Amino acid sequence: MNRRKLLKGLAGGTAATATLAAPAIAQTQPTVRWRMATGWPKSLDTIHGSAEELCKRVGQLTEGRFDIRCFAGGEIVPPLQVLDAVQNGTIECGHVLSANYIGKSPTYAFDAGLPFGLNARQQAAWLFEGGGLPLIRDFYKKTNVIPFPCGNVGTQMGGFYRKEINSVQDLQGLKIRIGGLGGVILRKLGAVPQQLPPSDIYSALERGTIDASEWIGPYDDAKLGLNKVAKFYYAPGWWEGSAGITAPVSLPAWNALPEHFKIAFETACNEQMMMMLAKYDARNPDALRRMIGEGTQLRLFPRPVLDACYQASFETFDELSAKDADFKTIYGPWKRFLESSNPWFRVAEQSLDAYRFSHDIPPSK
Amino acid sequence: MNRRKLLKGLAGGTAATATLAAPAIAQTQPTVRWRMATGWPKSLDTIHGSAEELCKRVGQLTEGRFDIRCFAGGEIVPPLQVLDAVQNGTIECGHVLSANYIGKSPTYAFDAGLPFGLNARQQAAWLFEGGGLPLIRDFYKKTNVIPFPCGNVGTQMGGFYRKEINSVQDLQGLKIRIGGLGGVILRKLGAVPQQLPPSDIYSALERGTIDASEWIGPYDDAKLGLNKVAKFYYAPGWWEGSAGITAPVSLPAWNALPEHFKIAFETACNEQMMMMLAKYDARNPDALRRMIGEGTQLRLFPRPVLDACYQASFETFDELSAKDADFKTIYGPWKRFLESSNPWFRVAEQSLDAYRFSHDIPPSK
Repeated sequence: MNRRKLLKGLAGGTAATATLAAPAIAQTQPTVRWRMATGWPKSLDTIHGSAEELCKRVGQLTEGRFDIRCFAGGEIVPPLQVLDAVQNGTIECGHVLSANYIGKSPTYAFDAGLPFGLNARQQAAWLFEGGGLPLIRDFYKKTNVIPFPCGNVGTQMGGFYRKEINSVQDLQGLKIRIGGLGGVILRKLGAVPQQLPPSDIYSALERGTIDASEWIGPYDDAKLGLNKVAKFYYAPGWWEGSAGITAPVSLPAWNALPEHFKIAFETACNEQMMMMLAKYDARNPDALRRMIGEGTQLRLFPRPVLDACYQASFETFDELSAKDADFKTIYGPWKRFLESSNPWFRVAEQSLDAYRFSHDIPPSK
Repeated sequence: MNRRKLLKGLAGGTAATATLAAPAIAQTQPTVRWRMATGWPKSLDTIHGSAEELCKRVGQLTEGRFDIRCFAGGEIVPPLQVLDAVQNGTIECGHVLSANYIGKSPTYAFDAGLPFGLNARQQAAWLFEGGGLPLIRDFYKKTNVIPFPCGNVGTQMGGFYRKEINSVQDLQGLKIRIGGLGGVILRKLGAVPQQLPPSDIYSALERGTIDASEWIGPYDDAKLGLNKVAKFYYAPGWWEGSAGITAPVSLPAWNALPEHFKIAFETACNEQMMMMLAKYDARNPDALRRMIGEGTQLRLFPRPVLDACYQASFETFDELSAKDADFKTIYGPWKRFLESSNPWFRVAEQSLDAYRFSHDIPPSK
């Protein structure tokens, strides 16, 4: 319809009204502005970068009508108070490791991942296809929040140590910077967990105020320079075999969104489940190789140490289940999924990976 | 602005024209209709179901303006001619295992995954963050197609066998239903690969026309009833450690899309990278357990058999590189990524998974 015809049609008649009605609706589609506070410094281009990509994608998917500004930890909310800010509606959404909030409730460990629990792939299967996410959402709902899984770091490293860990006895009195359930479990075994913001780790490790520190994995650990102040780099980070990342969203803000914006937000989160992991998986290898080239000594935790930590982990889960009803509600189904999933992962994925990783790749002729 | 005011404004003046211009654009936003042909029967609710979800999501993300109808294999295009149909523009897009097209060029193996190559996570890292996808797109561009990774099945099973495979000699003359590079490599070792559509596998295996058949993994294999006609179920499917799925799109159709629709399609594909894997990872464990309960004998390929296949695989890649320039162009960077990625995956993921999978989960008290 050309403009002349449109103007003519407008002079009268209901058809013309209908013609106008559609664009009028499109025009009044609300532009929603949200703020996302992350728990990360801007320097973490992997994990904070993933939050920025998530926000950008939501904008693209809504042709700019749903605009989420992304703020690094401390810019508008202190890094460890992001969940609180979402709960009280100060901000619409956040980007956090839920396990940082086990001080509020140990149940916040589930969307990040439990020690010796599901790996990143198993975690995604449990959340989206194994009944995990509905259980977790029921829990968050009590504080007016709806959580969206939006990434995973993969299995982290066990951290940098000034001295070797050769036995369970070496954990006695070990001052290690570690949070979450990993800290609770290590305390059981005699270690002395410390809470330190990332900016303070380097100097504490250099001065010997702490003996060891876990942070993330090679790519991020190298940025803090931890390899310059501690010699031994341990694997695996058994407390974070899946470090799942969550975007908690204020439930009133969510409920007020048009359906199309909800879909855009959810899809962008799901996309980052793959993208964040891909980023880490692509960048960690070079970072690890570089650190080893500069003198870092790579170590695996001795089996007796892992055995003690493994036992202590499941004892801790039992204790938490006994005293926390929310934890218990999710722990049962979570454990059944783990028990069902492990044997299958062992058969196909693990048997092929174990073979591949224990063989050199033949040189090309 | 109310309607009376709008009508008044329309009587004259440039401001009114501008007011009309915006909704007019919204109104003329094209509704695009595409057809996606998959290479799968409808009964595969995992992989064909993922294609349907992809199409649905694109519709949701564009408020119904970009409508992709999803057709199962054979409905509008025979399952193994989907790529051809996209290349010649008969349909706008498909949903395939690219490795099914190595008859056209062995280079089509890369977006599915190479035998003893990257696992699903490594594959995503290579494609999206390791330079893989741009290389693959350069290759597809020659036939006017742009490929989108849109899922992964994970490590497949090695298939059902009527007799045990105890040595490399047992591969001699083995009539096995298998396609892709796995078939090329097994032929090198004396096996006789067969091409059969999934609907014919059961009867061929029952009658002994073939000795063995690989298909996908427990959940899908059980649907074909392969466990009823062959006793031994082998792992791992070393030829498909990553069975990556591709949505090939006709380049002229792609170039004609509005930017917003391109974003919606790409994001929906990326979402399925996680979702399809989650579906398989959640459903395979029960299916495997059920089959074992019904008498299926689970076996791992003996190490000497894997050794022979491993050597033959990399020899095959060298041969293909020597005679196919396209294959060679991608193989070099692919192999460097594999060589860089494997040591890192061994340190963290593999060391923790190996520990976890070799220990019983302590019973709750």
